[in-house]
Amino acid sequence: MNTAFTWDFNGYDPEAERTVEALCTLGNGRFATRGAAPESPADEVHYPGTYAAGCYDRLFSEVAGERVGNEDMVNLPDWTRLRYRCLPDDGPAGNWLSADDPSLRRHEVSLDLRGGVLTRHLFFRDGHGRRLGVTHTRLVHMGDPYLAAQRTTFHGHGWSGAVEAESVIDGDVTNSGVERYRGLDGRHLTDHRAGAGADGVAWLSCRTRSSGTRIAVAVRTSSRPLVPVGSSCTGTGAVQRFRLPVSRGRSAAVVKCAALYTSLDRPSGDPLSLAVEHASHTPSFEVLLASHRAAWERLWSQGELKAPGEAGHILRLHLFHVLQTLSPHTAELDVGVPARGLHGEAYRGHVFWDELFVLPCLTLHFPEVARGLLMYRHRRLPAARDAARRAGLRGAMFPWQSGSSGAEETQTLHLNPRSGRWLPDHSHLQRHVGSAIAWNAWRYVQSTGDTGFAQGPGAELLLDIAGYWGAAATYDADRERYRIRGVVGPDEYHDAYPGAAAPGIDDNAYTNVTAAWVLARALALFGGLPEARRRELAERLGLDDGTLGRWEDISRRLYVPFHGGVISQFEGYGELAELDWDAYRSRYRDIRRLDRILESEGDTVNRYQASKQADALMLGYLFRPAELRSLFDRLGYRLDDETWRATVAHYLDRTSHGSTLSSLVHGWVLARQKGPDAWRYCEEALISDVADVQGGTTGEGIHLGAMAGTLDLVERGVAGLEAGPDGLRIDPTPLSEVPRCAFTFCYRGHRGIRVRLLPGRLGIRVPYSWQAAPLTVCLSGERVVTVNAGEEHWFRLPAR
Amino acid sequence: MNTAFTWDFNGYDPEAERTVEALCTLGNGRFATRGAAPESPADEVHYPGTYAAGCYDRLFSEVAGERVGNEDMVNLPDWTRLRYRCLPDDGPAGNWLSADDPSLRRHEVSLDLRGGVLTRHLFFRDGHGRRLGVTHTRLVHMGDPYLAAQRTTFHGHGWSGAVEAESVIDGDVTNSGVERYRGLDGRHLTDHRAGAGADGVAWLSCRTRSSGTRIAVAVRTSSRPLVPVGSSCTGTGAVQRFRLPVSRGRSAAVVKCAALYTSLDRPSGDPLSLAVEHASHTPSFEVLLASHRAAWERLWSQGELKAPGEAGHILRLHLFHVLQTLSPHTAELDVGVPARGLHGEAYRGHVFWDELFVLPCLTLHFPEVARGLLMYRHRRLPAARDAARRAGLRGAMFPWQSGSSGAEETQTLHLNPRSGRWLPDHSHLQRHVGSAIAWNAWRYVQSTGDTGFAQGPGAELLLDIAGYWGAAATYDADRERYRIRGVVGPDEYHDAYPGAAAPGIDDNAYTNVTAAWVLARALALFGGLPEARRRELAERLGLDDGTLGRWEDISRRLYVPFHGGVISQFEGYGELAELDWDAYRSRYRDIRRLDRILESEGDTVNRYQASKQADALMLGYLFRPAELRSLFDRLGYRLDDETWRATVAHYLDRTSHGSTLSSLVHGWVLARQKGPDAWRYCEEALISDVADVQGGTTGEGIHLGAMAGTLDLVERGVAGLEAGPDGLRIDPTPLSEVPRCAFTFCYRGHRGIRVRLLPGRLGIRVPYSWQAAPLTVCLSGERVVTVNAGEEHWFRLPAR
Repeated sequence: MNTAFTWDFNGYDPEAERTVEALCTLGNGRFATRGAAPESPADEVHYPGTYAAGCYDRLFSEVAGERVGNEDMVNLPDWTRLRYRCLPDDGPAGNWLSADDPSLRRHEVSLDLRGGVLTRHLFFRDGHGRRLGVTHTRLVHMGDPYLAAQRTTFHGHGWSGAVEAESVIDGDVTNSGVERYRGLDGRHLTDHRAGAGADGVAWLSCRTRSSGTRIAVAVRTSSRPLVPVGSSCTGTGAVQRFRLPVSRGRSAAVVKCAALYTSLDRPSGDPLSLAVEHASHTPSFEVLLASHRAAWERLWSQGELKAPGEAGHILRLHLFHVLQTLSPHTAELDVGVPARGLHGEAYRGHVFWDELFVLPCLTLHFPEVARGLLMYRHRRLPAARDAARRAGLRGAMFPWQSGSSGAEETQTLHLNPRSGRWLPDHSHLQRHVGSAIAWNAWRYVQSTGDTGFAQGPGAELLLDIAGYWGAAATYDADRERYRIRGVVGPDEYHDAYPGAAAPGIDDNAYTNVTAAWVLARALALFGGLPEARRRELAERLGLDDGTLGRWEDISRRLYVPFHGGVISQFEGYGELAELDWDAYRSRYRDIRRLDRILESEGDTVNRYQASKQADALMLGYLFRPAELRSLFDRLGYRLDDETWRATVAHYLDRTSHGSTLSSLVHGWVLARQKGPDAWRYCEEALISDVADVQGGTTGEGIHLGAMAGTLDLVERGVAGLEAGPDGLRIDPTPLSEVPRCAFTFCYRGHRGIRVRLLPGRLGIRVPYSWQAAPLTVCLSGERVVTVNAGEEHWFRLPAR
Repeated sequence: MNTAFTWDFNGYDPEAERTVEALCTLGNGRFATRGAAPESPADEVHYPGTYAAGCYDRLFSEVAGERVGNEDMVNLPDWTRLRYRCLPDDGPAGNWLSADDPSLRRHEVSLDLRGGVLTRHLFFRDGHGRRLGVTHTRLVHMGDPYLAAQRTTFHGHGWSGAVEAESVIDGDVTNSGVERYRGLDGRHLTDHRAGAGADGVAWLSCRTRSSGTRIAVAVRTSSRPLVPVGSSCTGTGAVQRFRLPVSRGRSAAVVKCAALYTSLDRPSGDPLSLAVEHASHTPSFEVLLASHRAAWERLWSQGELKAPGEAGHILRLHLFHVLQTLSPHTAELDVGVPARGLHGEAYRGHVFWDELFVLPCLTLHFPEVARGLLMYRHRRLPAARDAARRAGLRGAMFPWQSGSSGAEETQTLHLNPRSGRWLPDHSHLQRHVGSAIAWNAWRYVQSTGDTGFAQGPGAELLLDIAGYWGAAATYDADRERYRIRGVVGPDEYHDAYPGAAAPGIDDNAYTNVTAAWVLARALALFGGLPEARRRELAERLGLDDGTLGRWEDISRRLYVPFHGGVISQFEGYGELAELDWDAYRSRYRDIRRLDRILESEGDTVNRYQASKQADALMLGYLFRPAELRSLFDRLGYRLDDETWRATVAHYLDRTSHGSTLSSLVHGWVLARQKGPDAWRYCEEALISDVADVQGGTTGEGIHLGAMAGTLDLVERGVAGLEAGPDGLRIDPTPLSEVPRCAFTFCYRGHRGIRVRLLPGRLGIRVPYSWQAAPLTVCLSGERVVTVNAGEEHWFRLPAR
């Protein structure tokens, strides 16, 4: 095992069990397993050393509407449970063993990232000196998206007899992994039917309560030596029993192979027959392990990012967890980017804007997955159009939080745990999510040259999102400018003006500038479409000359507020009070959730120049400085270097970093302006989940945007990589803290282009391919070279 | 209306009503409507002039297994029915009117291909001189895949009063369109629920009996002027009633807008709520018509093929019907190529090898649709692997006939209507279907440069199909050659040796040569994969050096039989008896189904050198003469020009053309060898359906392979167009019967490259695009030019 790819959890604080459970999630982009919570009904199962697990899937939208408690993620039947006890020849049967049994002497958990394998070693020693070593090895198969497997090996020392093992499939699972949701009904499965056949295959079929999605899991349990002693069914599951002879120095093993199907799978068929058939014909665990590892090797090769030291180690963990949630198998599904991965139930599996931070990395390494995620949004254009229509507007108004149906699912109330008060939640006013989708679509096309997507679904996405901005912007005759009012920006601290009757703020700079960008890009794309397609879309979307003229006008005259030489986060921001940051920091130490602190004091963060996360500065994440300058130029504003630097400094001083995305974005912004502090923010982003910097949130699911974003930051950010129709543009920002790195990526017909960044030089290799076309590379906007397939070119980098 | 795009059915023989019904099918690649059969339970509905219609969908696999009567296509609820009668002010109510009412005076049906609109004009005149003109205008929306609409306009002349109209949704539909299947149970829908709301929306929900797929249709019926008089529900449908004031010179109209959803749609949701919501918010018929027409304009532009005269007119009809079945909407579905389109129930919607003739044309014009169809096959790789495993072999054994599950669904018995005998059916031994899939995948990659597909699903398809051939070929030490025994070739006349106990023939030349090609291509692709991907597939598919060495060996030493200077269709073919063709032709006139004739005479076609359709000559469809020569070279055989010409002549003389694909393939083969008879066969292929040359089969569904194949023949065939990584190769075969033609196509990043073939010259235009890359074109293997985006190049063609 390559230790550089092993993540060892033995140094973790025992209090951080939920974090470890989340970080031990194994998945294949279609479904995943993670450790059960201590509160699980399977009370013998505790961290460290859980061998039961919940499976997660994000295919389901359980309840539509705006109630608190929409469920878009349900726990699937648990196939991993295994109970065991010792039956010594010379004494009575032992206890059913678990990780909190007093006889547990040693417990080690390690995750082999390279192979996608989770291993747990438990060692028990009872009062009679009888010892039992137990090794669990689990995989969720990366080659075969329907399959998972777990092998448990028993070694007896100092006694002989048998191990009695019970293999369980359990459909009596609930959504109960997030403490504050436990008041909600967590039961989402119904109509259970279970059985166990003579061939060693036990099965369970059920369906989700609201959406009626049928789910079936079939498990073939085999033991070596094979001594089945019976099986039984409960109302919601099945149990198979085995007795395994164990003697000094000889080991015995139980293998569970699980096949999981749902009625949403393609080809369509009966999930139960498919699962049983599949589970009945699985090869041996060893063969499964080998093909699973080989599939992971391929992913590591496609996703390659090498960086030295601890940072490199964490980046590998991040790529690993991105791939648990979004792998090449995902491209075949109708699923979006769940903000917390498949790793926990926080946000109920909802889709937010996190794909803005996830797609760039996927587009580089796994463009088919990126396309699949864009198609997920495209399939929900009708829902977004309906939302706009109901709001009296045109185009597509994408929801801030959504599940399967594509409708708005944002909660309308939220709890401040600090004050115990339920408060109105206006975060659905974050209309900027549409621009994030448009930006991703555009970048995907730039990078892949996927003309079919660009002229087809891509054009529909971009034009309908532009259509929404065209309708949402209102003309202010006094200012001779267009305005977008009553929204919330990425910074959720500001959802209203202090004392205002209605929620929302006006002219959020990020919203307005990105809306202008979307309108300009939509006009350019529309103008470049083949004539018949242009006419078709004009007819269907109602794009007459008046509308297009209005778009052009808005894209040049949207209002962007400034104050004191910096971009204002929104109109009136400059008039808000300054917060005494030092006082709050010293009083509360952790002020990431400054909003909750102030509310519990009877105050409101809306009164202050204080942001939860990057807002205006998000512009520096989306656009290179020169791009941003020209965007402002088009809007009739001058954004010189000094103004931008002052803006960065202003907001850096006034941000509490209440989102894991905050440090990521600040890292990007500083890297792009080659600021010396860049690495400090990058590091903070890197450790978001591994150190659970938000104190408990990782256990409810990893932060997928931050994880994928750090990969992208080191790749696109540090290399300053940008893909376009004319070739690749490279403008590196070497960080002394990352003296070297290497990664591969896809660009149009090319797969596996490799960049190596070393002190003072940068190499780019284009692999040989029968699709071979030479690659044009432009370094720092100056040197242009052509690299032929099969060749490598080295650039000398200017000293910083 | 552009008359060049209008298909007028008024000249058709009234006996050909079923043919017209099929040719009047309207669809959008997701669902379709066609005329109901005269035997329909809605007995007022007759051709000519049907206004009720069945909807077809091929999403469903009803019964698995090998019984006669598997249903993969079910009739969907009929939303189109409308009954009406006159209520004159000055007399009693008239009859409920239909096209067989004695008062019918005129009836015209025409199909506007350009706009995808079917129009029927009926004119009634009763004994009192009261006249009623009725115009039905129907569309199945090409922009919105869930929607269809029908407007019926009434003009009263010579009387005043009202028209009473009943708008029906009818779920009491059966599969009964094919007479010889009527003994089978044709009821596939159950659990009907229906209702009608006050808002004018009536709905019906049901599910398929075996697969449990939920289906819902909601219809909003509106009338102008609006006078609803009530609604009612039956067990399986809903009826809404309207009374429309009609007076001299003033018209009234009823519009039905239908939304159709199933539980297989994405996003997943409740089909009924989705259908009702969608139907409730449709725009006016006029607006729908405009956006529908605009969508069709785009398709005509992408699918452009201009040719003069009657041929050009039929080619447009063919493209129209290909797009009814396989449109850009199809790319989002999990569906294959049904042999008879969505136009009828023959073959029960099953998928055969017809995509071999359909994908080339789609790849040129609609590459995303081609990709979707290849992915349909990829999703069924597990089923094909299972089939090979059960046969004791490796790799993927694709079925000859299949439905949703991907399992073999070929009938095991078939009826000879001439003798009345049920006979064993061995056509499932047509293993060559796998090579057709591999060939399509390869050509798709060559044409699109879709590296992601090539290295991903494409590699899995090709390698697993090669794996099957590697396992199926057996070594014959006497001949020092590999053999593939016990198969059936494309010519279904030969399914056994005369008098043999077991079915199948040995060494079918087409099967063996294409298997060798697949093995060689798979080895080349495998060798060119990125290393990690190669290792992954080697592990998963068991591709060790031994296996690969065996593939290489087989690909060079498969046996190809010859006799008398020509390729033998299979081993021993040369020893079969010669048929007295003239005698049979004069005795039976139509000998297309020679097999049935001989069987009814107590003889068997297996005894004769007689083919139903192209078999060995299929090689000349798949490969250019030079490619074919080098394939034979690799196999250690010399295929000189003389041998090939002799082979062509031999089989042309001995083929009864019992398949619509036969003349198509012969047209290709002769065009490629620039034979003077090419056009005769092309013409035969062109009229297959419009003249229903098989006497009644078109009414059971059009022949999709032949329709798409003729488009491809005029495009790729006449232009000699071939796409590869180095650019386009053009080697035209101008036919004097098609003195000029023009078409557009896609090639890699380019959309809308336009070829114009005129007497003595050929022009190629590359449209301007922001993806602009110059295009390399090689004419007749000699002149190579580079055409820049935005430019056109003209070649002078050599005189023939």
